[in-house]
Amino acid sequence: MTNTEHIGIAVKSLDVSIPLFEKLLNTTCYKTEVVTSENVNTAFFKMGETKIELLESMVQDGVISKFIEKKGEGLHHIAFEVADIKSEMERLKKEGFILLNEEPKKGADNKLVCFVHPKSSNGVLVELCQTIR
Amino acid sequence: MTNTEHIGIAVKSLDVSIPLFEKLLNTTCYKTEVVTSENVNTAFFKMGETKIELLESMVQDGVISKFIEKKGEGLHHIAFEVADIKSEMERLKKEGFILLNEEPKKGADNKLVCFVHPKSSNGVLVELCQTIR
Repeated sequence: MTNTEHIGIAVKSLDVSIPLFEKLLNTTCYKTEVVTSENVNTAFFKMGETKIELLESMVQDGVISKFIEKKGEGLHHIAFEVADIKSEMERLKKEGFILLNEEPKKGADNKLVCFVHPKSSNGVLVELCQTIR
Repeated sequence: MTNTEHIGIAVKSLDVSIPLFEKLLNTTCYKTEVVTSENVNTAFFKMGETKIELLESMVQDGVISKFIEKKGEGLHHIAFEVADIKSEMERLKKEGFILLNEEPKKGADNKLVCFVHPKSSNGVLVELCQTIR
């Protein structure tokens, strides 16, 4: 893992939360993107090297709606950039971490991603992401 | 606000979580620090420009123990670096955000800090921090 790529925040409505975060962060949302594989609409802000990614569910029973139902809106996951996602997945498995997907999948922002189960990482949902070149 | 300074993670025990995060992040904890003003023990990891800060309560009824009781271990807050904390606090108040402290206070890692109430920021506990020079 190299750097902290982004922080994911679960929100009920991008229409409400994009202007709210623009005020909070004092910067404009530079991109929105639909991620069909995860059934989410996303919105991105740049805060230095690390991005802030707002996540809104496109479906009623999606992972983000379920998260909000259980815990409320707020911090959802943290993502670290990796140079080689497959070798990082192997390393983590050997260290005893539980991966939520066995193969890298296509995430937002032109990345291959893999999630680590929060049960094995102190309650923190961790995403590995590798830029597709 | 300039960059994402750190991400705070609430943990029950640094003795357990420091080795866990060293394995997860594949890097060593470079500093531990007692923050008496907040009654927490902290441990830091560097992941690019953004730090990961583990927070362990020193007292039974502290903010971190209460957070863990309610939500479990996990992502606790996100901190953004500011050049001038007082003017940023003024800006946020004018925008309608609720601040948890009226005056900047001494935080970990040689910073002046101020927290924004999660009720006004989409469930996210936001910290502003300014390096003391």
